[in-house]
Amino acid sequence: MKINKESIQTMETRYRTNLINSLSGPRVAHLIGTVSESGAENLAIFSSVFHLGADPALLGMISRPDRVERHTLENIRETGVYTVNLVTADLFEKAHQTSARYPGGVSEFEAVGLTSEIVDDWGAPCVRESPLKMALKFREEVPIELNGTHLIIGEIMEIHVDGGIIDAEGRVDVFSLDPIVCVGLDTYGTVVRAGRLPYAKP
Amino acid sequence: MKINKESIQTMETRYRTNLINSLSGPRVAHLIGTVSESGAENLAIFSSVFHLGADPALLGMISRPDRVERHTLENIRETGVYTVNLVTADLFEKAHQTSARYPGGVSEFEAVGLTSEIVDDWGAPCVRESPLKMALKFREEVPIELNGTHLIIGEIMEIHVDGGIIDAEGRVDVFSLDPIVCVGLDTYGTVVRAGRLPYAKP
Repeated sequence: MKINKESIQTMETRYRTNLINSLSGPRVAHLIGTVSESGAENLAIFSSVFHLGADPALLGMISRPDRVERHTLENIRETGVYTVNLVTADLFEKAHQTSARYPGGVSEFEAVGLTSEIVDDWGAPCVRESPLKMALKFREEVPIELNGTHLIIGEIMEIHVDGGIIDAEGRVDVFSLDPIVCVGLDTYGTVVRAGRLPYAKP
Repeated sequence: MKINKESIQTMETRYRTNLINSLSGPRVAHLIGTVSESGAENLAIFSSVFHLGADPALLGMISRPDRVERHTLENIRETGVYTVNLVTADLFEKAHQTSARYPGGVSEFEAVGLTSEIVDDWGAPCVRESPLKMALKFREEVPIELNGTHLIIGEIMEIHVDGGIIDAEGRVDVFSLDPIVCVGLDTYGTVVRAGRLPYAKP
Protein backbone atom coordinates (compact mmCIF):
# COMPACT_ATOMS: atom_id res chain seq x y z
CA MET A 1 0.00 0.00 0.00
CA LYS A 2 0.99 3.62 -0.52
CA ILE A 3 0.87 6.10 2.38
CA ASN A 4 1.56 9.74 1.59
CA LYS A 5 2.40 12.78 3.64
CA GLU A 6 -1.19 14.00 3.75
CA SER A 7 -2.45 10.73 5.23
CA ILE A 8 0.45 10.67 7.73
CA GLN A 9 -0.49 14.16 8.89
CA THR A 10 -4.15 13.32 9.39
CA MET A 11 -3.60 10.05 11.27
CA GLU A 12 -4.71 9.67 14.87
CA THR A 13 -1.65 10.56 16.99
CA ARG A 14 -1.03 7.16 18.57
CA TYR A 15 -1.43 5.38 15.22
CA ARG A 16 1.07 7.73 13.57
CA THR A 17 3.53 7.34 16.46
CA ASN A 18 3.42 3.55 16.17
CA LEU A 19 3.66 3.60 12.38
CA ILE A 20 6.54 6.04 12.00
CA ASN A 21 8.47 4.54 14.92
CA SER A 22 8.27 1.11 13.25
CA LEU A 23 9.32 2.23 9.78
CA SER A 24 12.98 2.84 10.52
CA GLY A 25 13.30 -0.86 11.36
CA PRO A 26 15.02 -2.73 14.21
CA ARG A 27 17.01 -0.57 16.64
CA VAL A 28 19.42 -1.79 19.25
CA ALA A 29 18.33 -1.14 22.84
CA HIS A 30 20.62 0.39 25.45
CA LEU A 31 20.23 1.42 29.06
CA ILE A 32 21.62 4.86 29.87
CA GLY A 33 22.83 5.29 33.44
CA THR A 34 23.15 8.76 34.95
CA VAL A 35 23.18 10.49 38.31
CA SER A 36 21.98 13.95 39.28
CA GLU A 37 24.19 16.50 41.01
CA SER A 38 22.37 15.66 44.24
CA GLY A 39 23.18 11.97 43.81
CA ALA A 40 19.88 10.53 42.55
CA GLU A 41 20.53 7.68 40.12
CA ASN A 42 18.56 7.31 36.90
CA LEU A 43 18.33 4.52 34.35
CA ALA A 44 16.46 4.81 31.06
CA ILE A 45 16.04 2.67 27.96
CA PHE A 46 17.05 4.32 24.68
CA SER A 47 16.76 2.86 21.19
CA SER A 48 18.54 5.71 19.47
CA VAL A 49 22.21 5.19 20.37
CA PHE A 50 24.32 5.15 17.22
CA HIS A 51 27.93 5.02 16.07
CA LEU A 52 29.17 8.47 15.12
CA GLY A 53 32.90 7.97 14.67
CA ALA A 54 35.88 5.87 15.69
CA ASP A 55 38.59 8.52 16.19
CA PRO A 56 37.65 10.09 18.50
CA ALA A 57 35.31 7.27 19.60
CA LEU A 58 31.91 8.96 19.57
CA LEU A 59 28.36 7.76 20.13
CA GLY A 60 25.28 9.83 19.41
CA MET A 61 21.80 9.46 20.85
CA ILE A 62 18.54 11.31 20.49
CA SER A 63 16.75 12.68 23.52
CA ARG A 64 13.10 13.46 22.98
CA PRO A 65 11.46 16.44 24.67
CA ASP A 66 9.47 14.30 27.09
CA ARG A 67 9.62 13.85 30.82
CA VAL A 68 11.29 10.44 31.08
CA GLU A 69 14.21 11.20 28.81
CA ARG A 70 14.56 14.67 30.27
CA HIS A 71 15.88 13.21 33.54
CA THR A 72 18.65 11.57 31.56
CA LEU A 73 19.36 14.73 29.59
CA GLU A 74 19.38 16.94 32.69
CA ASN A 75 21.74 14.60 34.53
CA ILE A 76 24.12 14.48 31.56
CA ARG A 77 24.14 18.26 31.40
CA GLU A 78 24.77 18.52 35.15
CA THR A 79 27.49 15.92 35.56
CA GLY A 80 28.96 15.57 32.06
CA VAL A 81 29.09 11.76 32.27
CA TYR A 82 26.86 8.77 31.54
CA THR A 83 27.04 5.07 30.86
CA VAL A 84 25.77 3.12 27.85
CA ASN A 85 24.87 -0.50 28.62
CA LEU A 86 23.84 -3.04 25.96
CA VAL A 87 20.45 -4.63 26.59
CA THR A 88 20.56 -8.40 26.17
CA ALA A 89 17.79 -10.98 25.84
CA ASP A 90 17.72 -11.71 29.57
CA LEU A 91 17.41 -8.01 30.43
CA PHE A 92 14.90 -6.57 27.99
CA GLU A 93 11.79 -6.83 30.16
CA LYS A 94 13.51 -4.96 32.99
CA ALA A 95 14.95 -2.49 30.50
CA HIS A 96 11.48 -1.81 29.05
CA GLN A 97 10.13 -1.24 32.55
CA THR A 98 12.52 1.71 33.02
CA SER A 99 10.28 3.62 30.58
CA ALA A 100 7.57 3.87 33.26
CA ARG A 101 7.08 7.35 34.69
CA TYR A 102 8.63 6.87 38.10
CA PRO A 103 8.74 9.91 40.41
CA GLY A 104 12.01 11.86 40.43
CA GLY A 105 13.26 10.37 43.70
CA VAL A 106 12.89 6.74 42.59
CA SER A 107 15.93 4.93 41.18
CA GLU A 108 14.91 2.84 38.18
CA PHE A 109 17.72 0.44 39.09
CA GLU A 110 15.86 -0.52 42.26
CA ALA A 111 12.42 -0.22 40.75
CA VAL A 112 13.08 -2.71 37.93
CA GLY A 113 15.58 -4.96 39.73
CA LEU A 114 18.90 -4.14 38.09
CA THR A 115 22.15 -3.55 39.92
CA SER A 116 23.76 -0.12 39.93
CA GLU A 117 27.53 -0.31 39.87
CA ILE A 118 30.06 2.49 39.95
CA VAL A 119 33.19 1.35 38.14
CA ASP A 120 36.44 3.12 38.96
CA ASP A 121 35.97 6.83 38.50
CA TRP A 122 33.26 6.71 35.83
CA GLY A 123 31.09 9.14 37.83
CA ALA A 124 27.85 7.57 36.58
CA PRO A 125 26.30 4.21 37.44
CA CYS A 126 26.39 1.31 35.00
CA VAL A 127 24.28 -1.85 34.87
CA ARG A 128 26.21 -4.72 36.43
CA GLU A 129 24.15 -7.31 34.53
CA SER A 130 25.01 -5.92 31.08
CA PRO A 131 27.96 -7.67 29.37
CA LEU A 132 28.92 -4.56 27.35
CA LYS A 133 29.20 -1.33 29.33
CA MET A 134 30.78 1.94 28.32
CA ALA A 135 31.60 5.09 30.25
CA LEU A 136 31.02 8.23 28.20
CA LYS A 137 32.01 11.83 28.60
CA PHE A 138 29.44 14.35 27.34
CA ARG A 139 30.96 16.23 24.41
CA GLU A 140 28.24 18.17 22.64
CA GLU A 141 24.50 18.77 22.53
CA VAL A 142 22.97 19.63 19.18
CA PRO A 143 19.41 20.95 19.30
CA ILE A 144 17.28 19.76 16.37
CA GLU A 145 14.99 22.68 15.76
CA LEU A 146 12.72 20.81 13.34
CA ASN A 147 11.09 18.93 16.22
CA GLY A 148 12.63 19.94 19.56
CA THR A 149 14.75 16.81 20.01
CA HIS A 150 18.39 16.90 21.10
CA LEU A 151 21.34 15.02 19.67
CA ILE A 152 23.63 14.11 22.56
CA ILE A 153 27.20 13.28 21.59
CA GLY A 154 29.55 11.52 23.98
CA GLU A 155 33.07 10.17 23.81
CA ILE A 156 33.81 6.62 24.90
CA MET A 157 36.24 6.86 27.82
CA GLU A 158 36.22 3.24 28.93
CA ILE A 159 34.78 -0.07 27.74
CA HIS A 160 34.04 -3.19 29.78
CA VAL A 161 33.54 -6.31 27.68
CA ASP A 162 34.76 -9.92 27.59
CA GLY A 163 38.07 -9.74 25.74
CA GLY A 164 37.46 -13.25 24.40
CA ILE A 165 34.86 -12.00 21.94
CA ILE A 166 37.18 -9.47 20.26
CA ASP A 167 38.93 -10.91 17.20
CA ALA A 168 42.48 -10.20 16.04
CA GLU A 169 41.29 -7.32 13.85
CA GLY A 170 39.24 -5.62 16.56
CA ARG A 171 35.74 -6.91 15.73
CA VAL A 172 33.55 -7.45 18.79
CA ASP A 173 31.24 -10.45 18.35
CA VAL A 174 28.23 -8.64 19.76
CA PHE A 175 25.97 -11.39 18.39
CA SER A 176 27.38 -13.74 21.04
CA LEU A 177 26.02 -11.42 23.75
CA ASP A 178 22.42 -12.00 22.56
CA PRO A 179 21.55 -8.32 22.02
CA ILE A 180 17.96 -7.12 21.86
CA VAL A 181 16.52 -4.86 19.17
CA CYS A 182 13.17 -3.11 19.20
CA VAL A 183 10.76 -2.18 16.44
CA GLY A 184 8.48 0.71 17.23
CA LEU A 185 7.76 1.44 20.87
CA ASP A 186 7.01 -1.95 22.33
CA THR A 187 8.03 -4.89 20.13
CA TYR A 188 11.36 -6.61 20.74
CA GLY A 189 13.48 -9.10 18.86
CA THR A 190 16.66 -11.10 19.08
CA VAL A 191 19.48 -11.13 16.55
CA VAL A 192 21.23 -14.06 14.87
CA ARG A 193 24.60 -13.84 13.14
CA ALA A 194 24.28 -14.46 9.39
CA GLY A 195 27.88 -14.07 8.27
CA ARG A 196 30.75 -11.79 7.44
CA LEU A 197 31.32 -10.37 3.97
CA PRO A 198 34.70 -9.41 2.48
CA TYR A 199 35.61 -5.77 1.84
CA ALA A 200 33.66 -4.84 -1.30
CA LYS A 201 35.59 -4.07 -4.49
CA PRO A 202 34.16 -3.01 -7.87
CA MET B 1 38.44 -6.74 29.95
CA LYS B 2 38.79 -3.01 30.43
CA ILE B 3 39.75 -0.75 27.51
CA ASN B 4 40.37 2.90 28.28
CA LYS B 5 40.63 6.05 26.19
CA GLU B 6 44.42 5.94 26.08
CA SER B 7 44.47 2.43 24.63
CA ILE B 8 41.73 3.35 22.12
CA GLN B 9 43.81 6.30 20.93
CA THR B 10 46.96 4.24 20.46
CA MET B 11 45.31 1.35 18.59
CA GLU B 12 46.22 0.59 14.99
CA THR B 13 43.65 2.47 12.86
CA ARG B 14 41.89 -0.52 11.31
CA TYR B 15 41.65 -2.31 14.67
CA ARG B 16 40.12 0.78 16.29
CA THR B 17 37.68 1.24 13.42
CA ASN B 18 36.46 -2.36 13.74
CA LEU B 19 36.26 -2.20 17.52
CA ILE B 20 34.42 1.09 17.87
CA ASN B 21 32.06 0.33 14.98
CA SER B 22 31.08 -2.94 16.67
CA LEU B 23 30.47 -1.50 20.12
CA SER B 24 27.25 0.33 19.37
CA GLY B 25 25.66 -3.05 18.57
CA PRO B 26 23.40 -4.22 15.74
CA ARG B 27 22.30 -1.52 13.29
CA VAL B 28 19.60 -1.85 10.68
CA ALA B 29 20.84 -1.64 7.09
CA HIS B 30 19.23 0.57 4.46
CA LEU B 31 19.94 1.37 0.84
CA ILE B 32 19.82 5.07 0.01
CA GLY B 33 18.82 5.88 -3.57
CA THR B 34 19.74 9.22 -5.10
CA VAL B 35 20.29 10.83 -8.48
CA SER B 36 22.63 13.66 -9.47
CA GLU B 37 21.43 16.80 -11.23
CA SER B 38 22.85 15.36 -14.44
CA GLY B 39 20.81 12.18 -14.01
CA ALA B 40 23.41 9.70 -12.71
CA GLU B 41 21.80 7.27 -10.27
CA ASN B 42 23.52 6.27 -7.05
CA LEU B 43 22.78 3.58 -4.47
CA ALA B 44 24.65 3.24 -1.17
CA ILE B 45 24.29 1.10 1.95
CA PHE B 46 23.93 3.02 5.21
CA SER B 47 23.70 1.58 8.70
CA SER B 48 23.00 4.88 10.40
CA VAL B 49 19.37 5.66 9.51
CA PHE B 50 17.39 6.37 12.66
CA HIS B 51 13.97 7.51 13.80
CA LEU B 52 14.01 11.18 14.72
CA GLY B 53 10.34 11.99 15.18
CA ALA B 54 6.81 11.05 14.16
CA ASP B 55 5.20 14.47 13.64
CA PRO B 56 6.62 15.60 11.32
CA ALA B 57 7.83 12.14 10.25
CA LEU B 58 11.60 12.54 10.27
CA LEU B 59 14.52 10.19 9.72
CA GLY B 60 18.13 11.08 10.44
CA MET B 61 21.24 9.51 8.99
CA ILE B 62 24.96 10.11 9.35
CA SER B 63 27.10 10.77 6.30
CA ARG B 64 30.80 10.24 6.86
CA PRO B 65 33.37 12.44 5.15
CA ASP B 66 34.47 9.73 2.73
CA ARG B 67 34.17 9.33 -1.01
CA VAL B 68 31.41 6.72 -1.24
CA GLU B 69 28.96 8.44 1.03
CA ARG B 70 29.82 11.81 -0.46
CA HIS B 71 28.09 10.89 -3.72
CA THR B 72 24.91 10.33 -1.74
CA LEU B 73 25.35 13.55 0.21
CA GLU B 74 26.08 15.61 -2.91
CA ASN B 75 23.07 14.21 -4.74
CA ILE B 76 20.79 14.95 -1.78
CA ARG B 77 22.08 18.51 -1.64
CA GLU B 78 21.59 18.95 -5.39
CA THR B 79 18.13 17.44 -5.78
CA GLY B 80 16.63 17.65 -2.28
CA VAL B 81 15.20 14.12 -2.45
CA TYR B 82 16.25 10.54 -1.69
CA THR B 83 14.81 7.14 -0.98
CA VAL B 84 15.32 4.88 2.04
CA ASN B 85 14.93 1.17 1.29
CA LEU B 86 15.01 -1.54 3.97
CA VAL B 87 17.65 -4.22 3.36
CA THR B 88 16.23 -7.71 3.80
CA ALA B 89 17.95 -11.08 4.16
CA ASP B 90 17.74 -11.84 0.43
CA LEU B 91 19.32 -8.47 -0.46
CA PHE B 92 22.18 -7.96 1.98
CA GLU B 93 25.00 -9.29 -0.17
CA LYS B 94 24.03 -6.98 -3.04
CA ALA B 95 23.54 -4.14 -0.56
CA HIS B 96 27.03 -4.68 0.89
CA GLN B 97 28.49 -4.65 -2.61
CA THR B 98 27.26 -1.04 -3.11
CA SER B 99 30.01 -0.01 -0.67
CA ALA B 100 32.66 -0.74 -3.34
CA ARG B 101 34.30 2.34 -4.80
CA TYR B 102 32.69 2.40 -8.21
CA PRO B 103 33.63 5.27 -10.56
CA GLY B 104 31.25 8.22 -10.61
CA GLY B 105 29.55 7.25 -13.86
CA VAL B 106 28.64 3.72 -12.71
CA SER B 107 25.16 3.09 -11.29
CA GLU B 108 25.39 0.80 -8.27
CA PHE B 109 21.93 -0.49 -9.17
CA GLU B 110 23.33 -2.06 -12.34
CA ALA B 111 26.68 -2.96 -10.82
CA VAL B 112 25.20 -5.04 -8.00
CA GLY B 113 22.07 -6.30 -9.76
CA LEU B 114 19.25 -4.38 -8.14
CA THR B 115 16.39 -2.71 -9.99
CA SER B 116 16.07 1.06 -10.02
CA GLU B 117 12.47 2.19 -9.98
CA ILE B 118 11.06 5.70 -10.07
CA VAL B 119 7.74 5.73 -8.26
CA ASP B 120 5.29 8.50 -9.10
CA ASP B 121 7.03 11.83 -8.67
CA TRP B 122 9.53 10.79 -5.99
CA GLY B 123 12.40 12.31 -7.99
CA ALA B 124 14.91 9.71 -6.73
CA PRO B 125 15.19 6.03 -7.56
CA CYS B 126 14.10 3.36 -5.10
CA VAL B 127 15.00 -0.34 -4.95
CA ARG B 128 12.18 -2.38 -6.48
CA GLU B 129 13.23 -5.50 -4.57
CA SER B 130 12.91 -3.86 -1.13
CA PRO B 131 9.54 -4.48 0.59
CA LEU B 132 9.72 -1.23 2.58
CA LYS B 133 10.58 1.89 0.58
CA MET B 134 10.24 5.50 1.57
CA ALA B 135 10.54 8.74 -0.39
CA LEU B 136 12.18 11.49 1.64
CA LYS B 137 12.49 15.21 1.22
CA PHE B 138 15.77 16.69 2.47
CA ARG B 139 14.98 19.00 5.37
CA GLU B 140 18.23 19.88 7.13
CA GLU B 141 21.94 19.16 7.23
CA VAL B 142 23.68 19.46 10.59
CA PRO B 143 27.47 19.47 10.46
CA ILE B 144 29.06 17.63 13.40
CA GLU B 145 32.21 19.60 13.99
CA LEU B 146 33.70 17.08 16.41
CA ASN B 147 34.57 14.74 13.56
CA GLY B 148 33.49 16.18 10.22
CA THR B 149 30.41 13.97 9.78
CA HIS B 150 27.03 15.30 8.69
CA LEU B 151 23.62 14.58 10.13
CA ILE B 152 21.14 14.50 7.24
CA ILE B 153 17.51 14.96 8.22
CA GLY B 154 14.70 14.10 5.85
CA GLU B 155 10.92 14.06 6.02
CA ILE B 156 9.00 10.96 4.95
CA MET B 157 6.81 12.02 2.03
CA GLU B 158 5.58 8.61 0.94
CA ILE B 159 5.77 5.01 2.15
CA HIS B 160 5.40 1.81 0.14
CA VAL B 161 4.77 -1.28 2.26
CA ASP B 162 2.38 -4.24 2.38
CA GLY B 163 -0.66 -2.91 4.25
CA GLY B 164 -1.31 -6.41 5.61
CA ILE B 165 1.60 -6.11 8.06
CA ILE B 166 0.27 -2.92 9.71
CA ASP B 167 -1.86 -3.65 12.77
CA ALA B 168 -4.94 -1.74 13.92
CA GLU B 169 -2.82 0.56 16.08
CA GLY B 170 -0.30 1.42 13.36
CA ARG B 171 2.52 -0.99 14.21
CA VAL B 172 4.40 -2.27 11.16
CA ASP B 173 5.51 -5.89 11.63
CA VAL B 174 8.96 -5.24 10.21
CA PHE B 175 10.13 -8.60 11.60
CA SER B 176 8.00 -10.33 8.97
CA LEU B 177 10.07 -8.65 6.24
CA ASP B 178 13.24 -10.42 7.44
CA PRO B 179 15.34 -7.28 7.96
CA ILE B 180 19.12 -7.36 8.12
CA VAL B 181 21.26 -5.74 10.80
CA CYS B 182 24.99 -5.26 10.75
CA VAL B 183 27.59 -5.20 13.51
CA GLY B 184 30.72 -3.28 12.70
CA LEU B 185 31.65 -2.85 9.06
CA ASP B 186 31.18 -6.31 7.63
CA THR B 187 29.22 -8.70 9.85
CA TYR B 188 25.50 -9.16 9.25
CA GLY B 189 22.65 -10.76 11.14
CA THR B 190 18.96 -11.54 10.94
CA VAL B 191 16.31 -10.58 13.45
CA VAL B 192 13.66 -12.72 15.15
CA ARG B 193 10.59 -11.32 16.88
CA ALA B 194 10.67 -11.98 20.63
CA GLY B 195 7.43 -10.37 21.75
CA ARG B 196 5.53 -7.23 22.56
CA LEU B 197 5.48 -5.68 26.02
CA PRO B 198 2.66 -3.59 27.49
CA TYR B 199 3.05 0.13 28.10
CA ALA B 200 5.20 0.36 31.24
CA LYS B 201 3.65 1.78 34.42
CA PRO B 202 5.36 2.30 37.80
